[in-house]
Amino acid sequence: MLGVCYYPEHWPQSMWQQDAEEMKQLGIEYVRLAEFAWCRLEPTEGNYCFEWLDSAIEILHSQDLKVILCTPTATPPKWLIDKHDDILPNDIETGMTRGFGSRRHYDFSSRSFFDAAMKITHVMASRYANHPAVVGWQTDNELACHDTTLSSSPMALQAFREWCEHKYGTIDGLNKAWGTIFWSMEYQSFDELELPLMAVTETHPSHQLAFRRFSSDQVIHFHDAMVKEIREKCPSHFVTHNFIPMVDTQCDNVALSDPLDFVSYDNYPLGRTDLFFSSLSAAEFERYMRTGHPDFASYSFDQIRGLSKAPFWIMEQQPGPVNWGGHNPKPVDGMVRFWSWEAVAHGASTISYFRWRQAAFAQEQMHAGIKRVDNSKSNAWNEIERFRKELIESRIDVESPVNTCVAIVMDAHNQWVTEIERQGDSYEHQQVEFEYYSALRQLGIDVDFISQSSDLSPYKLIIAPCLPIVSTRFIDACEAHDVHVIFGPRSGSKTEEFWLSPTLGPGLIQQLIDIQVVATETLRDDCPQALNFGVAKLQCGRWLEYIDLSSDSDIEVLGQYLSSEAAIVRNQNCTYIGCLMRVDFLVKVLESSLSALKIPHQLLPHDVRISRRDGKLFVFNYNAEEVIVTLHEIDGKEISVGPRQLVIVDA
Amino acid sequence: MLGVCYYPEHWPQSMWQQDAEEMKQLGIEYVRLAEFAWCRLEPTEGNYCFEWLDSAIEILHSQDLKVILCTPTATPPKWLIDKHDDILPNDIETGMTRGFGSRRHYDFSSRSFFDAAMKITHVMASRYANHPAVVGWQTDNELACHDTTLSSSPMALQAFREWCEHKYGTIDGLNKAWGTIFWSMEYQSFDELELPLMAVTETHPSHQLAFRRFSSDQVIHFHDAMVKEIREKCPSHFVTHNFIPMVDTQCDNVALSDPLDFVSYDNYPLGRTDLFFSSLSAAEFERYMRTGHPDFASYSFDQIRGLSKAPFWIMEQQPGPVNWGGHNPKPVDGMVRFWSWEAVAHGASTISYFRWRQAAFAQEQMHAGIKRVDNSKSNAWNEIERFRKELIESRIDVESPVNTCVAIVMDAHNQWVTEIERQGDSYEHQQVEFEYYSALRQLGIDVDFISQSSDLSPYKLIIAPCLPIVSTRFIDACEAHDVHVIFGPRSGSKTEEFWLSPTLGPGLIQQLIDIQVVATETLRDDCPQALNFGVAKLQCGRWLEYIDLSSDSDIEVLGQYLSSEAAIVRNQNCTYIGCLMRVDFLVKVLESSLSALKIPHQLLPHDVRISRRDGKLFVFNYNAEEVIVTLHEIDGKEISVGPRQLVIVDA
Amino acid sequence: MLGVCYYPEHWPQSMWQQDAEEMKQLGIEYVRLAEFAWCRLEPTEGNYCFEWLDSAIEILHSQDLKVILCTPTATPPKWLIDKHDDILPNDIETGMTRGFGSRRHYDFSSRSFFDAAMKITHVMASRYANHPAVVGWQTDNELACHDTTLSSSPMALQAFREWCEHKYGTIDGLNKAWGTIFWSMEYQSFDELELPLMAVTETHPSHQLAFRRFSSDQVIHFHDAMVKEIREKCPSHFVTHNFIPMVDTQCDNVALSDPLDFVSYDNYPLGRTDLFFSSLSAAEFERYMRTGHPDFASYSFDQIRGLSKAPFWIMEQQPGPVNWGGHNPKPVDGMVRFWSWEAVAHGASTISYFRWRQAAFAQEQMHAGIKRVDNSKSNAWNEIERFRKELIESRIDVESPVNTCVAIVMDAHNQWVTEIERQGDSYEHQQVEFEYYSALRQLGIDVDFISQSSDLSPYKLIIAPCLPIVSTRFIDACEAHDVHVIFGPRSGSKTEEFWLSPTLGPGLIQQLIDIQVVATETLRDDCPQALNFGVAKLQCGRWLEYIDLSSDSDIEVLGQYLSSEAAIVRNQNCTYIGCLMRVDFLVKVLESSLSALKIPHQLLPHDVRISRRDGKLFVFNYNAEEVIVTLHEIDGKEISVGPRQLVIVDA
Repeated sequence: MLGVCYYPEHWPQSMWQQDAEEMKQLGIEYVRLAEFAWCRLEPTEGNYCFEWLDSAIEILHSQDLKVILCTPTATPPKWLIDKHDDILPNDIETGMTRGFGSRRHYDFSSRSFFDAAMKITHVMASRYANHPAVVGWQTDNELACHDTTLSSSPMALQAFREWCEHKYGTIDGLNKAWGTIFWSMEYQSFDELELPLMAVTETHPSHQLAFRRFSSDQVIHFHDAMVKEIREKCPSHFVTHNFIPMVDTQCDNVALSDPLDFVSYDNYPLGRTDLFFSSLSAAEFERYMRTGHPDFASYSFDQIRGLSKAPFWIMEQQPGPVNWGGHNPKPVDGMVRFWSWEAVAHGASTISYFRWRQAAFAQEQMHAGIKRVDNSKSNAWNEIERFRKELIESRIDVESPVNTCVAIVMDAHNQWVTEIERQGDSYEHQQVEFEYYSALRQLGIDVDFISQSSDLSPYKLIIAPCLPIVSTRFIDACEAHDVHVIFGPRSGSKTEEFWLSPTLGPGLIQQLIDIQVVATETLRDDCPQALNFGVAKLQCGRWLEYIDLSSDSDIEVLGQYLSSEAAIVRNQNCTYIGCLMRVDFLVKVLESSLSALKIPHQLLPHDVRISRRDGKLFVFNYNAEEVIVTLHEIDGKEISVGPRQLVIVDA
Repeated sequence: MLGVCYYPEHWPQSMWQQDAEEMKQLGIEYVRLAEFAWCRLEPTEGNYCFEWLDSAIEILHSQDLKVILCTPTATPPKWLIDKHDDILPNDIETGMTRGFGSRRHYDFSSRSFFDAAMKITHVMASRYANHPAVVGWQTDNELACHDTTLSSSPMALQAFREWCEHKYGTIDGLNKAWGTIFWSMEYQSFDELELPLMAVTETHPSHQLAFRRFSSDQVIHFHDAMVKEIREKCPSHFVTHNFIPMVDTQCDNVALSDPLDFVSYDNYPLGRTDLFFSSLSAAEFERYMRTGHPDFASYSFDQIRGLSKAPFWIMEQQPGPVNWGGHNPKPVDGMVRFWSWEAVAHGASTISYFRWRQAAFAQEQMHAGIKRVDNSKSNAWNEIERFRKELIESRIDVESPVNTCVAIVMDAHNQWVTEIERQGDSYEHQQVEFEYYSALRQLGIDVDFISQSSDLSPYKLIIAPCLPIVSTRFIDACEAHDVHVIFGPRSGSKTEEFWLSPTLGPGLIQQLIDIQVVATETLRDDCPQALNFGVAKLQCGRWLEYIDLSSDSDIEVLGQYLSSEAAIVRNQNCTYIGCLMRVDFLVKVLESSLSALKIPHQLLPHDVRISRRDGKLFVFNYNAEEVIVTLHEIDGKEISVGPRQLVIVDA
Repeated sequence: MLGVCYYPEHWPQSMWQQDAEEMKQLGIEYVRLAEFAWCRLEPTEGNYCFEWLDSAIEILHSQDLKVILCTPTATPPKWLIDKHDDILPNDIETGMTRGFGSRRHYDFSSRSFFDAAMKITHVMASRYANHPAVVGWQTDNELACHDTTLSSSPMALQAFREWCEHKYGTIDGLNKAWGTIFWSMEYQSFDELELPLMAVTETHPSHQLAFRRFSSDQVIHFHDAMVKEIREKCPSHFVTHNFIPMVDTQCDNVALSDPLDFVSYDNYPLGRTDLFFSSLSAAEFERYMRTGHPDFASYSFDQIRGLSKAPFWIMEQQPGPVNWGGHNPKPVDGMVRFWSWEAVAHGASTISYFRWRQAAFAQEQMHAGIKRVDNSKSNAWNEIERFRKELIESRIDVESPVNTCVAIVMDAHNQWVTEIERQGDSYEHQQVEFEYYSALRQLGIDVDFISQSSDLSPYKLIIAPCLPIVSTRFIDACEAHDVHVIFGPRSGSKTEEFWLSPTLGPGLIQQLIDIQVVATETLRDDCPQALNFGVAKLQCGRWLEYIDLSSDSDIEVLGQYLSSEAAIVRNQNCTYIGCLMRVDFLVKVLESSLSALKIPHQLLPHDVRISRRDGKLFVFNYNAEEVIVTLHEIDGKEISVGPRQLVIVDA
């Protein structure tokens, strides 16, 4: 199904009718409204002006378009900011107040803002609870974007002290839990606690982790209350939220998404590729600059699917060049359709495009829309039209699930652990996780993302690229199921409160495989080390662990450093990979595991990817040339896929 | 004519007489005094001490030297700072007050400082109005240097609110003009306005542009008042100001220079080359590190000439290594003479060297002077002596104009547009403008810099490398004159208030050439794209526009991307270049235009440049080797120019 | 002798007895205690709790272990910070208060902290003055680490004004001494003075140098008082301090170490190599990443020896990977022993390892210890055991001196001069000094580091890589002794108050060699210039001086630029090197000097180093391969040294 993000308040009312008709013509079903409209809905305190929104909804309704309303809380109006002195957040690097004039200028610990946000939510939900056109809600917008989860405000400090008191009970409990004796940091009361910011040198990691967990909880608390506010008035409406990439929220996304009916994602392949792959050489980068990297959009799709109770939505799909990358290329012709299909292949039910018409003014005026500012149709129009036609013809059930037996464990708390304790500048949590994902995708595997609390029964292979803090529950579940688990380096090395495991790494994982990490080193990214993997000569680097397996003779050594010390070990249930590898080497290691587990796979041609859903096999060719793909799982069938094209076959 | 910057207050009075005699001996006519001397002229409030300056002037006068006095306002003394709490400016990045202890430590919005600056100006102008040695004034020093145009002070905020109220009349007018609805930024009163700084993410571009225009106006208002103060007392004296490179003032330089008799420039080729060309490879950089880039000094000369009602001055000429570059090489022997001639060739009447004697103390002690601290003569002495002798022998009229039929349009407001809206990190306004300039210079063309309001009648070809905001008046003038206009990408794409053109780019330029820019992309600098220019295979990059010319069949496509989409188009009156190119490719495009317009030109040997003035042709050889140049415009005459030498021939 | 850093407060008391027994078993003699334990010693104001420390000391004493106590002042507890609002220092870049939550969070100008620090010192010294196990004290910890010497606090400002008044007597004296007239900075009273921070552009160098000297004096004043406090109660105990690398203290280390019995150093070869050599290419860097650079640890050893009245200690020796480098490799097997021997060869009497057992929690949990957190022995245990055995067998007297006839002059004040006046971004004080040191070491020379005030009688050759401010006393001493002095560029170019020498560079050095530096230039590091050195074609760069020697015909020109201008000159007493060179070129220049002075030397094989002490010759091989070394000074004896091994022979 198709949707669109629409801002009628940016255009003369005289254009609305034609807009609605053209949306209908394009096959749009859902229209998202009111995202940043607070100052127009409540120009001064308590002075509500919904008439214009009523009119817009009516016009859309007259074309049978369904409306998704946004709580407009991402942009509190100036009168609200000026009335309360506690709404603007403080920058954690400098301590300075972050000013008004853009968006997301509120502190999640502000009581005044919490009350005001719930009130406008309540008023809107009350007004539109029974409107026949309104079917659902988007909460706020891209929560935590622009580094707004963490704040160094006095309100945040006060709330953090309360959070710690609630969690640790007594100050002595906190002192013991963290180990504050280290640099004479023992506290006498919770009132002595500070935020772990702007100190002379690095602050206590347990203190930092508590602050991260607290900050995440503040966002979740805010969001839970908003969802509750909506549901009270609109029990029959769905509620969703449009997520940014997981790593950027600085939130526990699993908990954050919990109250939602389904989860949405804002998909900007080119902007994300520009930012994430900026260190690539020109030749490597240019390959993807107008298509996005073959695994980067789907990496988010699969994570979002893991958060969602039902097929996810793309709430905002890039329709052309955007404005916020370091550089903003034009997608190659056909990519908007291509990306739409890619989302469907990975489990999306609905693709909503951002935005209807390019804004003529303000911050995002260089962000393309389906229509241009002169109201002409951009290239995206035809691509969307084609995608819709093909989608209908394909008869794919967009409510169907994606099924696979391979999962990666995601965990925001462990992301924070790696951000707090760099140890090596070349260890990047997202890069490490992405390398595993990309290797699996090159091997033709569909990938689920799960949490440590997920049901493991669907899986034969679970990969935990980075779980320094591992839960007993997860280890028990792994043991209870017939599943093989691959752990990356650092896994199990820390306790819940960010101490070293008292039994050395991999700590609780020793329940699955009886080894000890006796030394750890980190290296510059450009100093790779030899790794013998059977007869294969691979390379590893960045983070290297030295494994002692002397206490268990059933453990097989798969990979060794030049010194013959063990780097990769395996037993029946578990593989422990004590080092990092570039994707091309990781492919070889994972291929060996898949073979051992008898999980069907095939090494795909370069920059070709396959996905499966609802009985179909999708083949995506990111190359600028045609590719012939031999599909092992369909009896070696050979299919040809044109440049930047996709083919859908019966699986 | 020759001048020198002199600080008698830095040396014992016993040296002044000999200094004056040696200046006379060297052929100096003008001596600049009192530039930073406020604390010595008014050691405590209202306690004026001019006796020492009187003495210095008398001694210079006794040698028939003419004196230029500076208003000493670039360095307010500590007692003044301590008396008022509103003089120090605030840093726009951090909000912190910028401290005392260097120079330019005043806020252009400070009323206290304005009053104090006008008072010391008044007192000085009154005292020296009728002194026979005093012939002119330099206002302040290098206005806006060290990023001092913009300030985030409370005074700046208050003044900005008033400026907006004056400009927009009503707050609703401002809301409509900017489009504040975008992210719920509609204001209820001017008192709600903030400076567009330190927000959570990017602020509104119209808001930013208004702040830039306001900030520029504050400098101009200050400067206009100072010039008026001087003229009231000293109607027969000239008034000038010593400019830094245009891009660094963050001011509308055309407006700022308006009240001056002529404009001056501080010429530091090596320091500027070190900063502007820092990304060059070692081999490329080393080529210019002791000579400066062949086009970078003259680029400023030609801009300064465009601001000046009469032949410009070099007020400060680098005489040896300076102290403020990232690295500070020694000019090759002869370069001080070479640069002096270069300035004359581009229209200077007077070259004043900075400074008489290297300072023995303080911040600039590593900045060379004509004399060393032990009072010996540096290399510059002989070079200046030689330059003066040659200048006299050449009989060139230094008051004569430079005439050319080719002009580049400069425009600070459009510089700000590109700084506010990066869109691509590889778009640098000055680099783009400089590439056009350098290409023209390699083709032997003398270049004027003009504003959108200039008289266009002298020109056959006008080039606008970057005019997103174009004026109706300028387009009408282009149409009215028999002139061909070349526009670079982005031109005409914005309205006066920084909205997108409602007819798409190039907006008002569609009056000259009926095309539409239907898509824009930005690319990494290291990802150049193929560009077919006739049979030539060129490259373009960084900023690419896709042009639709379907509505006018008289338009010729000169350049095409690999996709065959139009990149460069032309009709009788106008060429639109929708992409950026490196200088060597741009030379080919401009050569084609010059040929079409029958403007004489020739591609000069590498690093050779020619200029014309007062019937002479100047040939400058920046190479370390001798070069033979065939001069097409003098019947193919061949002349030999030694390494880092110049030759002057009759044109 | 061996020592260890021990934190019993981090572990259950039940482990202490075994710890002590194992220390004894390993051969440890000294145990350092209480370093950061203030919050446990005085949990609330005046409430002293020494019982736990008494117990720990008793247990160690029962094993005949000797105890070194630390004043715990590097980590003031939270209650002290909260009681006084003047303890936390202010960041000099931003002006913001640096927060609690790590260590070294005190301002050296805080009176409250000074009093509190002296009180806890007094209380501890009183308590343990007569304890039979306690033999010595370490003051604080790594004074000035984490950039804490300089602070922008109001207390620092007040103290700076008083310091200036004390030094300059009258404000007019200060104005004249600095030359404040330059940019109108003349002060009317000391109350007008500000710290030279956060100004609009660079502040006055004399002002900056005064602030550096003041800041250093504040640290010294604090430290002198602490030593005095200890000595009053414990006259028979030794007092030492554990230094970080000289360049990082921002203190006059010679003055700072003056009251100590001997000086200690914290030796972390890998962390330091990661930080100092980060610009090396991957291939070059990888060579040293697990051994450290062959000259970088010993460079500090020799400097520390120069500060110490008796053989120095290594107070903290890296026993495995650390946690604070950008990357933290694992030392190659054997390096802990190798580094220990290296310290002994350079004059250490005692090697104390950091730390007994890896911390299970807090900031340094990734920093290796002798024992792991599970109480198993890390690799370091065996290496230390072996080192101790070999040390005993060698019968080397660890109290014996190191004797050499070659010295390098170190001088913190001149380091500050180069930091204040960059002039060229590629001039790095430590790099320049290190290049000379490394060249001498490659030539097999043992090197002393001395100050300008040192006794010069032991030396035949003294090298001053960087002495812009040179003392009359030093020059007189050079002249009085039969010593040849080599000066690097910049030497003698400044006066004591940071003016240019009125006779041009090398200023006072003209007493030794009658030359003038008539021009100075700085170049990009990647733009080396040709240097003719006799028949050898060398390269120089970064900082180039042009020398006029016309007034003295006895001066020999050793090195010339391509222009034939003099770059390196020499007479009987003195060599002046006016440019910088890479180590491999510098080796050739110094080899020529050593030969001329008949100082025995030999160019060693790559990455082999030799040292001499107590009649032994130590040969260290940093290579990964075996090397055969021919020892000229032992009659050409050939010895083979294994990879990363050392050999000790009778000299």
